[in-house]
Amino acid sequence: MKRSTPNDDELARLLAAAGSGLAPHEVRALIAGVAAAPAGFEATAWMRLVVPEPAAALTEALSALEAEARKGRGTGPDAGPAPGERLAALRAELARRGFAGIIVPRADAHHSEYIPERAERLRWLTGFSGSAGTAVVLAGNAAVFVDGRYTLQVDLEVAGELFERRHVTDDPPHEWVAANLGNGGKLGYDPWLHTPDGLARYRDACRRAGGELVACADNPIDAIWHEQQPPPLAPVVPHETRFAGKEAVEKRREIAAALREAGTAACVISTPDSLAWLLNLRGGDVPCSPFPLAFAIIGDDARVELFCDRRKLAPEIAQHLGPDVEIKGVDDLGPALDKLAKGKKPLQADPAATSAWVFERVAAAGGELRRAPDPCALPKACKNDVELAGTRAAHQRDGAALTRFLCWFAKSAPEDGLTEMAAAKRLYALRAENEHYRGPSFSTIAGAGPNGAIVHYHFSDKTNRTIEPGSLFLVDSGGQYLDGTTDVTRTIAVGAPTDEQRERFTAVLKGHIALATTRFPTGTTGSQLDVLARHALWQMGLDYDHGTGHGVGSYLGVHEGPQRISKLPNTVALKPGMIVSNEPGYYKEGEYGIRIENLVCVVALKPGMIVSNEPGYYKEGEYGIRIENLVCVVALAREAGHEHDMLGFETLTRAPIDRSLIVADMLTPSEAAWLDAYHAEVRATLTPLVDAATAEWLAEATRPIGEGRGDAA
Amino acid sequence: MKRSTPNDDELARLLAAAGSGLAPHEVRALIAGVAAAPAGFEATAWMRLVVPEPAAALTEALSALEAEARKGRGTGPDAGPAPGERLAALRAELARRGFAGIIVPRADAHHSEYIPERAERLRWLTGFSGSAGTAVVLAGNAAVFVDGRYTLQVDLEVAGELFERRHVTDDPPHEWVAANLGNGGKLGYDPWLHTPDGLARYRDACRRAGGELVACADNPIDAIWHEQQPPPLAPVVPHETRFAGKEAVEKRREIAAALREAGTAACVISTPDSLAWLLNLRGGDVPCSPFPLAFAIIGDDARVELFCDRRKLAPEIAQHLGPDVEIKGVDDLGPALDKLAKGKKPLQADPAATSAWVFERVAAAGGELRRAPDPCALPKACKNDVELAGTRAAHQRDGAALTRFLCWFAKSAPEDGLTEMAAAKRLYALRAENEHYRGPSFSTIAGAGPNGAIVHYHFSDKTNRTIEPGSLFLVDSGGQYLDGTTDVTRTIAVGAPTDEQRERFTAVLKGHIALATTRFPTGTTGSQLDVLARHALWQMGLDYDHGTGHGVGSYLGVHEGPQRISKLPNTVALKPGMIVSNEPGYYKEGEYGIRIENLVCVVALKPGMIVSNEPGYYKEGEYGIRIENLVCVVALAREAGHEHDMLGFETLTRAPIDRSLIVADMLTPSEAAWLDAYHAEVRATLTPLVDAATAEWLAEATRPIGEGRGDAA
Repeated sequence: MKRSTPNDDELARLLAAAGSGLAPHEVRALIAGVAAAPAGFEATAWMRLVVPEPAAALTEALSALEAEARKGRGTGPDAGPAPGERLAALRAELARRGFAGIIVPRADAHHSEYIPERAERLRWLTGFSGSAGTAVVLAGNAAVFVDGRYTLQVDLEVAGELFERRHVTDDPPHEWVAANLGNGGKLGYDPWLHTPDGLARYRDACRRAGGELVACADNPIDAIWHEQQPPPLAPVVPHETRFAGKEAVEKRREIAAALREAGTAACVISTPDSLAWLLNLRGGDVPCSPFPLAFAIIGDDARVELFCDRRKLAPEIAQHLGPDVEIKGVDDLGPALDKLAKGKKPLQADPAATSAWVFERVAAAGGELRRAPDPCALPKACKNDVELAGTRAAHQRDGAALTRFLCWFAKSAPEDGLTEMAAAKRLYALRAENEHYRGPSFSTIAGAGPNGAIVHYHFSDKTNRTIEPGSLFLVDSGGQYLDGTTDVTRTIAVGAPTDEQRERFTAVLKGHIALATTRFPTGTTGSQLDVLARHALWQMGLDYDHGTGHGVGSYLGVHEGPQRISKLPNTVALKPGMIVSNEPGYYKEGEYGIRIENLVCVVALKPGMIVSNEPGYYKEGEYGIRIENLVCVVALAREAGHEHDMLGFETLTRAPIDRSLIVADMLTPSEAAWLDAYHAEVRATLTPLVDAATAEWLAEATRPIGEGRGDAA
Repeated sequence: MKRSTPNDDELARLLAAAGSGLAPHEVRALIAGVAAAPAGFEATAWMRLVVPEPAAALTEALSALEAEARKGRGTGPDAGPAPGERLAALRAELARRGFAGIIVPRADAHHSEYIPERAERLRWLTGFSGSAGTAVVLAGNAAVFVDGRYTLQVDLEVAGELFERRHVTDDPPHEWVAANLGNGGKLGYDPWLHTPDGLARYRDACRRAGGELVACADNPIDAIWHEQQPPPLAPVVPHETRFAGKEAVEKRREIAAALREAGTAACVISTPDSLAWLLNLRGGDVPCSPFPLAFAIIGDDARVELFCDRRKLAPEIAQHLGPDVEIKGVDDLGPALDKLAKGKKPLQADPAATSAWVFERVAAAGGELRRAPDPCALPKACKNDVELAGTRAAHQRDGAALTRFLCWFAKSAPEDGLTEMAAAKRLYALRAENEHYRGPSFSTIAGAGPNGAIVHYHFSDKTNRTIEPGSLFLVDSGGQYLDGTTDVTRTIAVGAPTDEQRERFTAVLKGHIALATTRFPTGTTGSQLDVLARHALWQMGLDYDHGTGHGVGSYLGVHEGPQRISKLPNTVALKPGMIVSNEPGYYKEGEYGIRIENLVCVVALKPGMIVSNEPGYYKEGEYGIRIENLVCVVALAREAGHEHDMLGFETLTRAPIDRSLIVADMLTPSEAAWLDAYHAEVRATLTPLVDAATAEWLAEATRPIGEGRGDAA
């Protein structure tokens, strides 16, 4: 039986008994913040913010209060007033303040991919729930601007009689502002929600319209959104050195040295994963990414000011951070910037990830805030040996869970009624059994048949499909583990695939293998390698409309920079220790989707490094091929004479690739050799980690593709 | 017997008899300008600038005067005072003007690759003859800055006791200025010789040193360089529509429409090949590139002001240009800019190719000069059908000449004493027999043995090597024809090559074929494709340190933009009609160099376009490969189902690739099929154009590589 929520007297008594210094109203406010964050994987972990070890009665009482607080949540159009009323209230608020309009981006003050519910102002105002978009509201008209991913969704979610619905690049918001603002109009913006460069075009557009772009002192939506959540308060905990591989003090020293080299006195850090990396902290303020929302300033003396709501710091944090990290409130950021702005040396911040508010504050105080890339980004991207060992271990456990799922799926999918959601739920449950598991690293994409062709598909009650025989099932999922972050996609044939499906799957696989096996000289960027993953598809007149690889963190964001494998130019060279995804795909609209994704890590291949004699493919008098640690295909006859320090990729992910979708004769001997070696490695590492039935299925699923090919190869 | 030079009386008589309006002193000045340009392919063509059809006596007299004028030329360290004296004279001149120092770039006011002798101030001052470099001269010290191509050469050419020798990126000139200029120092620059962006870092460096960057009213070197040539005066002639494919009036209208679209009143054009393209003009003021040095301003009404020394215009130019092109002197450019600057609409110019002088002039007159890419660059790069037909024809004639050379070389090279220079001379002579030939498109690179490993090698009397048995000979050359520009590299084995040479040549060939045969979706840039040419080398731990492909003009520059195939990021998509080189290589320092270069042109491959049934490679039940117009390798089994408009490359160059350097077993069936189809096409098109002995040699040289391979493939 569930306990009912305690009243203040009961709560006060329980708190006093536990020796907590908090009053009941403080605990209620804390719980409102806890409920504004995603539920943690360990349901009661947040209670350590009340007392270190709450007894059973207090735990029950706190659970009841949290459950009650979570019930009241909801940012979508279903909670609170109707969309038309929200828009009318905003217009009234703007008129009261003397503004002709306002820009409403989907953003928070940290400019990263995930934002807390509190910052979902665009969604609250318009109903649009996509991950990127902007609205502009004027007195007489309003518009929502989204990119190509969301043109269908915006029509479903946003009322056309309230908002014009526009494509953000074909019909950009600043041009709409220039055409609609009107002479003398003041267009408002929240300086916390924009980066400085993003504002320049709005400023120009306002000027062209004869108006003006003006910062709002506080966000007008916050004044009218009565159900708005408070800032999230998920517990901030240390990230242990046995996982991080390097003490925070050492990281701080290295960043300080970089600042001295650059001649700047301090760096403002707004990016949550950089802050988490720098101080070896983890949190849970936003979904899927284990970092706290906070700001920091690191000085060239390696001292740090951390601006953060103190209530969310776990009891051991002060000792973990040590005397050279000063904990301050978020409101202390402005005065700290004012003080630093008066110094002789300039400050620095990353203009792509720092709010205009910070730049404007430093300028107003007479200081110089230089634009410079985030100094934590590159050292964070290049994982150390402890992080790499952790990520390898996490990938083995993750691969075992995925393989148990695949075995179960092979037996369950042909039966009636298995749905995308049921399959995803099963996969989650298997992962959740793993050591060090802390939750999903992103919302699982589980697309059956035509849903697989929607690249950013997320099932819902409305779209949930039954997995049918004769279809393909695409499942892209990952886990956050204390020792590493995973992200893997497998495409599975349900029943017998068509020749077209097999040919296109094999073309995707050829691209995957080309990238997995390439060597490249130091200094090479991901942009340079991207075509390797597309080339086989291109020769068939096919392509895929997304990047080939994104950086991945170490128990941090599943998307991180600065490296990337993409058509878009990128000047960041791939460096040893960087983790990146290898995920070419193919999507046939209305029919099926294919993606094969492994994570890989950049490794150095010193000339002469490869000396063992492992199984491979040898054609007498012609060439030999050998797979070494899943790093590279080595042509033995041409191994000598390396002139450059080369890099390659070590594949981290361990899970079988559906053999029934592969046209063996489309593979070259070296491609087939890589696939067989990969499958042999998958079998060897996962068999000890799975049950007997799964092991048996795995043995069959990882049989050599070349069997029976012989001289036909 | 050569006629001696005429005196003024004789000359006046000859001129009067011919009906020329020029006085003897005017003709002498004209000839000084003619001699300041490279000698034209037709030795007497320039005389039309004196009278339309000079008779024999006048021709002889003018020839003698030209020969005398050319004798006096020379910008190298051998002519004029010793290097130390030049430097001392410059310092005295700077002191006289109150400057602490000056920047001396290798540049002229047109910022293209080739510059006239008059602008070789860096070479005159320092002795450095490379194609890129900068000197900074201060009162007490001086330095020359060059890139990695020239670090050896600068040590040979520049006196270390006069100039520090620095690497331009490791040790950049602006940092040297910041460290050396000294407080209060005025550093001079010639605003004609710098683009605005290039100056920004110097300006910052001067400020850091406590000094100032100041424009010179005129170049101080011109005041002390007594042997300096006048501006070159090569005849400017129409480029006929039968070669250009489009009337100049139509081009002017299209550019004007682009200006109206951009909202600018006019565009300043300094780039000589853009000007030549726009007005269908050709000239010869610099080596190897058939364009005149001049400036133009095109208005949004399609009218053009051409700023050019009138003396170099051929008699028919005024009629060719028509009434909407106004011819003015170079000195009229400034007043024209002043006038336009007073208009309401802004002007535009390409900041990468326009002198700071132009920007400063417009700003001083109160106007706005917007930075915008050269509007002629893209339409010039996308050749029309007439230009493409011309370039195909030019490549056939050029290939025939090269093949005659290769046949001769195969028979002559083993004999004693053939040198790089003698070989290059022979190749030139064979090309010069071709219809429409107008000269080389760049200085031939003919590198024997270790000289082949020097990427930018140019033989001289000092370096000229004998071609020895057991070596490789690399020859990179091209021609300017009225109907097209060629550029081709072949690497030839003299005697039996080593296994290493053959393996590395084959890896280069695999890269060449990968690029030649790839399909790619519209929107793809050359940067994205670059890795295809390197991949095979990378797998052997090898690479080459230069770009893979440059744009090529149509009887214009052998290097042109905006497209490029290179490791460096480039956002210009490849478009149908663009010509680009495909030239991977490999260089073993001190031993040999390999490069295989064909020109290719981008073509559209519409789905279903490929329908004929040409010879190919068919493996029953597995796959088929077919070569179509040397455009693409088509996998027949997967031809259906194209979803994108794809592009590919049509190979333009026709010349055999040395079979003795190819390891046939390193080629895949489709690579071998491409090579055989290419050789079949070379044989079919060139056999009718060459002598019987060459035809016989060519038949052998183009035999299928797959002969006898059978199932081993």
